[in-house]
Amino acid sequence: MSVAASMRGFPEWLPAGQLVEQRVLRSLRETFELHGYSPLDTRAVEALDTLLEKGETDKEIYLLRRLQAAEDESDSGLGLHFDLTVPFARYVRDNAGKLLFPYRRYQIQKAWRGERPQEGRYREFLQADIDVIDRGELAPHFEAELPLVAAEALRRLPIPRFSIQVNNRKIMQGVFEGIGLPGDTLAAFRSLDKLRKIGPEAVRELLIEAGASRAQADVCLSLARIRTSDVSFVDDVRSLGVRSDLLERGLAELAAVLEAGRAFAGDDSPFVADLQITRGLDYYTGTVYETVMEGAESLGSVCSGGRYDNLVGGEREAYPGVGVSIGVTRILGPLLARGEIVASRPVPTCVLVAVASEEARAEADRVAHMLRARRIPTEVSPTAARYGRQIRYADQRGIPFVWFPGNEVRDIRSGAQVPADPATWMPPEEDREVSITAPVGPAAGEEQAREQL
Amino acid sequence: MSVAASMRGFPEWLPAGQLVEQRVLRSLRETFELHGYSPLDTRAVEALDTLLEKGETDKEIYLLRRLQAAEDESDSGLGLHFDLTVPFARYVRDNAGKLLFPYRRYQIQKAWRGERPQEGRYREFLQADIDVIDRGELAPHFEAELPLVAAEALRRLPIPRFSIQVNNRKIMQGVFEGIGLPGDTLAAFRSLDKLRKIGPEAVRELLIEAGASRAQADVCLSLARIRTSDVSFVDDVRSLGVRSDLLERGLAELAAVLEAGRAFAGDDSPFVADLQITRGLDYYTGTVYETVMEGAESLGSVCSGGRYDNLVGGEREAYPGVGVSIGVTRILGPLLARGEIVASRPVPTCVLVAVASEEARAEADRVAHMLRARRIPTEVSPTAARYGRQIRYADQRGIPFVWFPGNEVRDIRSGAQVPADPATWMPPEEDREVSITAPVGPAAGEEQAREQL
Repeated sequence: MSVAASMRGFPEWLPAGQLVEQRVLRSLRETFELHGYSPLDTRAVEALDTLLEKGETDKEIYLLRRLQAAEDESDSGLGLHFDLTVPFARYVRDNAGKLLFPYRRYQIQKAWRGERPQEGRYREFLQADIDVIDRGELAPHFEAELPLVAAEALRRLPIPRFSIQVNNRKIMQGVFEGIGLPGDTLAAFRSLDKLRKIGPEAVRELLIEAGASRAQADVCLSLARIRTSDVSFVDDVRSLGVRSDLLERGLAELAAVLEAGRAFAGDDSPFVADLQITRGLDYYTGTVYETVMEGAESLGSVCSGGRYDNLVGGEREAYPGVGVSIGVTRILGPLLARGEIVASRPVPTCVLVAVASEEARAEADRVAHMLRARRIPTEVSPTAARYGRQIRYADQRGIPFVWFPGNEVRDIRSGAQVPADPATWMPPEEDREVSITAPVGPAAGEEQAREQL
Repeated sequence: MSVAASMRGFPEWLPAGQLVEQRVLRSLRETFELHGYSPLDTRAVEALDTLLEKGETDKEIYLLRRLQAAEDESDSGLGLHFDLTVPFARYVRDNAGKLLFPYRRYQIQKAWRGERPQEGRYREFLQADIDVIDRGELAPHFEAELPLVAAEALRRLPIPRFSIQVNNRKIMQGVFEGIGLPGDTLAAFRSLDKLRKIGPEAVRELLIEAGASRAQADVCLSLARIRTSDVSFVDDVRSLGVRSDLLERGLAELAAVLEAGRAFAGDDSPFVADLQITRGLDYYTGTVYETVMEGAESLGSVCSGGRYDNLVGGEREAYPGVGVSIGVTRILGPLLARGEIVASRPVPTCVLVAVASEEARAEADRVAHMLRARRIPTEVSPTAARYGRQIRYADQRGIPFVWFPGNEVRDIRSGAQVPADPATWMPPEEDREVSITAPVGPAAGEEQAREQL
């Protein structure tokens, strides 16, 4: 059992689920650091002005007020961040003179949104973001690097398969320009973004409401249906017969991302060109990403992001960036609830040192100390109860080994008990650390490997 | 430089400081898990009723309100937690039927207090807590185990020396009883707690205000002056001539903690019996701890806690516990600001793979992939600029190695360049990972070792 009793929208896990989350975060950090990303932790609190800068009022910000403060005191203008991109951009703006560019960082923190809670949507949730920001110009290869690093991080986890759907806003905007679509482009973006949810007929109506003719709406819908795992989307788009310079730039940029994925991973590339992806956020200016896990399509995207050119808002120089955000709670919440990701035991402990009597506790402590010195997680029995009860303590927690006075160690799964030296004994590698797995149910088939973190 | 521009009371670190904090947290987690403590992360948000349960209004709670919510909506009764003990107790109460007892957990999270910011006191700060809670009774050996684990965790860090001052509230309360001190014991506790800050004369006045006679106040002051690193405090207390059963229980419990420290660590025991320590919090009922770092006495306690018997408040059963809280931000903030704890480089990267031209980037990516597969943190150069500039990129970031096309690797500190195979080459162990050290200044003397995490 992994999910604890909780306040709606503020999920908490039981100890086994906590270990799953901790191991997932450790694995993400390792992957990010292997790629040279530096850790960043920003304050949870931002000035309300910063949070509202890009007009994100639909994110339902939580405001802060001190219990004992007067209403008019200054910190009434503070709110909790609703994502990690806005705080990162603010941090870069605050410290631009002291940072080295391009600046790669990862950031694993909670964010808060006062939304209506539902599966995969929480009021408090963990995000794991990577971004790179450069000064002046940002090299285009980063638009492939960032989602490839995120894909590598996700592939190390025992979670369902996924693909990263990539689009480039310049393609849509270029098509809008090419067909002479009038009015608010953002409204058209947002209409197309709803294609999967409300279907083509309803989207056509929305586009016509936004000022498109029936023929223009049909071109947009044809564009949005294009989805290829190689660069053949370029020909598909050209066959629409629309021409614009912006469109050509978008096609070239998107093709470069797809090609980089194949150059790096061959047929195992995580990328699919999907020309209906737009991302709701206003601040993206080029490549955008979304990621759907197999069998979890209703959750929405579990890893999203894109390129932004104007988020940092430097006064004299541009600070373009690209980032991807992994929805850790969105991924783990449903998997933990359904038992589709589990820890091999609910405690980190590998060895329980049994205690013959309270007087002999110091001796047990010394054995434990020797085992820990070689990085074997070890507890000393909390009581000097009879050995049967001490073994039961280990068994209930899935602790595989019990160490007895006189230096004998028992594998309580097999019952095999052998003499052992606390200065040299080592448990098998797979027992030493808690492992995280996706148990294969009878329905899940053989395809899903029993991966270990 | 480690400290970033920031909002007062909400500290943020520059990338090198971020790496220091990240490595410190990793080290703390490792130590806690080696001792069998399970990770726990609770929501940042608690019902205001829970936060105020123990009368902690002096903690200046931050209340939440949704920007777009009406004033009377239900979540206006939510606040951010001001410590990790109250949320832990609430979590145990919520999930008591699903937890295995004794339940050991560590919890590393931020907490928020709307206090006036000053050195070592922040409005947002990181705490690293360990607690154990049992059902019914809690074995007394835990009152020594918990601070010993915290001491081991702290000793692995390159921070100043410290000692853990231990007291037991039963000793003070027993003395108050024995001398017939009338009135509010808590007021007397709190007066004595101010001894270091305001001196004996002022404390005597406070005690007399709280109802003590001059003679009673003098006994209290004599008690509070007792400080020994072995169990001789017992004789010192007895020489005050006060008798009470509660006092005897307190002396026995405190002596047991001191003895456990010596049994485990000999003269290296971190414990000092210090009979003026009371801890302000109402919920402690027995042993209490405070920790002062050498040269940082003005910061106050950096690792505090105690035993509590009534915090969980189970209806049918008692859930006594004991816990210790490490003030991570309080320790790191001043050390980072003064450069007394530093990272060996501001990025995790060990190798920069140089790029001959943008066309050759895929080849550089393959080399980087091979190095990362053997856990060597590797970046590919962001540009195919001339090699001098690529080497400068590495040098500015303290990246020790540059890998050139044709598979030659240069140690840019010595300039030595040798052929190398990306499938087998390994950097020296001390270069592979960022290390965290306390640089020894000319004034700091030779005593402070150059410890590494």
